[in-house]
Amino acid sequence: MFEQIVECVPNFSEGRNKEVIEKIVEPLRRAEGVKLLDYSADVSHNRLVVTVVGLPAAVRVAVIEAVGQAVQEIDLNRHKGEHPRMGAADVIPFIPVRNVTMELAVSLARETAKEIFERFRVPTYLYEKAATRPERENLANIRKGEFEGFKEKIKLPEWMPDFGTAELHPTAGATVVGARAPLVAFNVNLGTSNLEIADKIAKRVRHISGGLRYVKAIGVSLEDRGIVQVSMNMTDFTRTSLYQAFEMVKMEARRYGIPVIGSEIIGLTPQEALIDTAVYYLGLENFSSHQILENRLME
Amino acid sequence: MFEQIVECVPNFSEGRNKEVIEKIVEPLRRAEGVKLLDYSADVSHNRLVVTVVGLPAAVRVAVIEAVGQAVQEIDLNRHKGEHPRMGAADVIPFIPVRNVTMELAVSLARETAKEIFERFRVPTYLYEKAATRPERENLANIRKGEFEGFKEKIKLPEWMPDFGTAELHPTAGATVVGARAPLVAFNVNLGTSNLEIADKIAKRVRHISGGLRYVKAIGVSLEDRGIVQVSMNMTDFTRTSLYQAFEMVKMEARRYGIPVIGSEIIGLTPQEALIDTAVYYLGLENFSSHQILENRLME
Repeated sequence: MFEQIVECVPNFSEGRNKEVIEKIVEPLRRAEGVKLLDYSADVSHNRLVVTVVGLPAAVRVAVIEAVGQAVQEIDLNRHKGEHPRMGAADVIPFIPVRNVTMELAVSLARETAKEIFERFRVPTYLYEKAATRPERENLANIRKGEFEGFKEKIKLPEWMPDFGTAELHPTAGATVVGARAPLVAFNVNLGTSNLEIADKIAKRVRHISGGLRYVKAIGVSLEDRGIVQVSMNMTDFTRTSLYQAFEMVKMEARRYGIPVIGSEIIGLTPQEALIDTAVYYLGLENFSSHQILENRLME
Repeated sequence: MFEQIVECVPNFSEGRNKEVIEKIVEPLRRAEGVKLLDYSADVSHNRLVVTVVGLPAAVRVAVIEAVGQAVQEIDLNRHKGEHPRMGAADVIPFIPVRNVTMELAVSLARETAKEIFERFRVPTYLYEKAATRPERENLANIRKGEFEGFKEKIKLPEWMPDFGTAELHPTAGATVVGARAPLVAFNVNLGTSNLEIADKIAKRVRHISGGLRYVKAIGVSLEDRGIVQVSMNMTDFTRTSLYQAFEMVKMEARRYGIPVIGSEIIGLTPQEALIDTAVYYLGLENFSSHQILENRLME
């Protein structure tokens, strides 16, 4: 049944009206081949974040239905919240989880973006791995100006939508659809309360300042435990593994004579991130995920 | 759908007649909530080994149906093969895989054994974790004498069946039903061709000669690669972990100045055996298998 799994985390610009929230979530709750994992509405952000997983085609169809509800129910002219937004359905990332290539996630994003315009006349942009030009890879870059500013921004030739005309939907704005690797939030705890050391290690490990390609990292203080941690976002664990980040934190900690005392994964992780770690430390040869008993049940 | 998973590996005394084999497998192939993972018939053993997983109650019902087919189709008076056997359905182990306790596996074994006698008049014995007395824990001990010898053995007071009377089924013999932990076949490769060293390390690591409680181990030579390995059966990885066995082999290999150059898992393993290993090496705190995305799909 679930030989292929894609994840989708659509964000909608409604975090307060429960009735509207339920209308948006409903198509994702009842769809065959789709599992609603989580949805959480934030009042101050005035935003709804939904997490679904399932068969690629089924997820695409259900997400488009949910977008239809959002377009019908949300008027951005009356929307205020702390989180930046440019659309009623604001951003829709597709994430490969299991037996799904990034190419498939990209084509799901394209089909979804195309259909959102065709059915609802909401112009759409493609971002991250689905981006059609480099300056559209970064979501913040696309969204700059938000709904209010976009009435003009959309008329600029360089901001012509990927699907649609140079005209914003009057109430639902524009939607950004894309594909990205699954994120794993992975924190490594240090046996010190010295935040400066965590920051220095974070700088060594993260991509932006010379470290591993798919790691974002900052130092964070855990006041209640009297320790600090290197808090990381693993932005593509299939290329930069958890064990690489872990071993690099350990390596840098040695410089300060500080022990690594543990780690944590916040939220969800695809199975592969941990299996890959076990395979590395045991030096397993020729291991295939088909050897995992539970995986046979999903095939 | 599959929040709870039990595995069952029934062995039947027919490895040659394809028609009979298919009749036995059929109830396990078509049952709701049961997945047929594998079945293999061995001609020289004249034996069929089937692997199914699924919901506990569904697996029990389907396995009993398969036993009914075996009782109807197999006549042990005409059965010859290299593998010891005492019943048409010879041995039926239930194995907890996911969210199933050993207590539940034991009660599945008891119910199955009881129903096999009640429906087919085949006397049954309980073994391993389901055994009612210490001398019945070991399967070989129960099966000694095989079908032919059992006509007399079953009359001995100490070999009174757990379910049934002191009388063998005239064509289907008796069946042994039980519960055991999942086995993981885990081999660690050494950078030497010296089999004696692999044997010495195996002795240090295995339970019987002073090592880890749930490890069986022998030295094996991989002629084609010019290396040796410590070949292990992890008989309960929930109590003796793969990483413990791996680290202990490494520790002992140091004595001989020999490197550990890799490892392998043969066949299937429950996910938990590898997740547990990753959790150990990363020092993950408070990790729950609910954080694995794929697991959410089975809930």
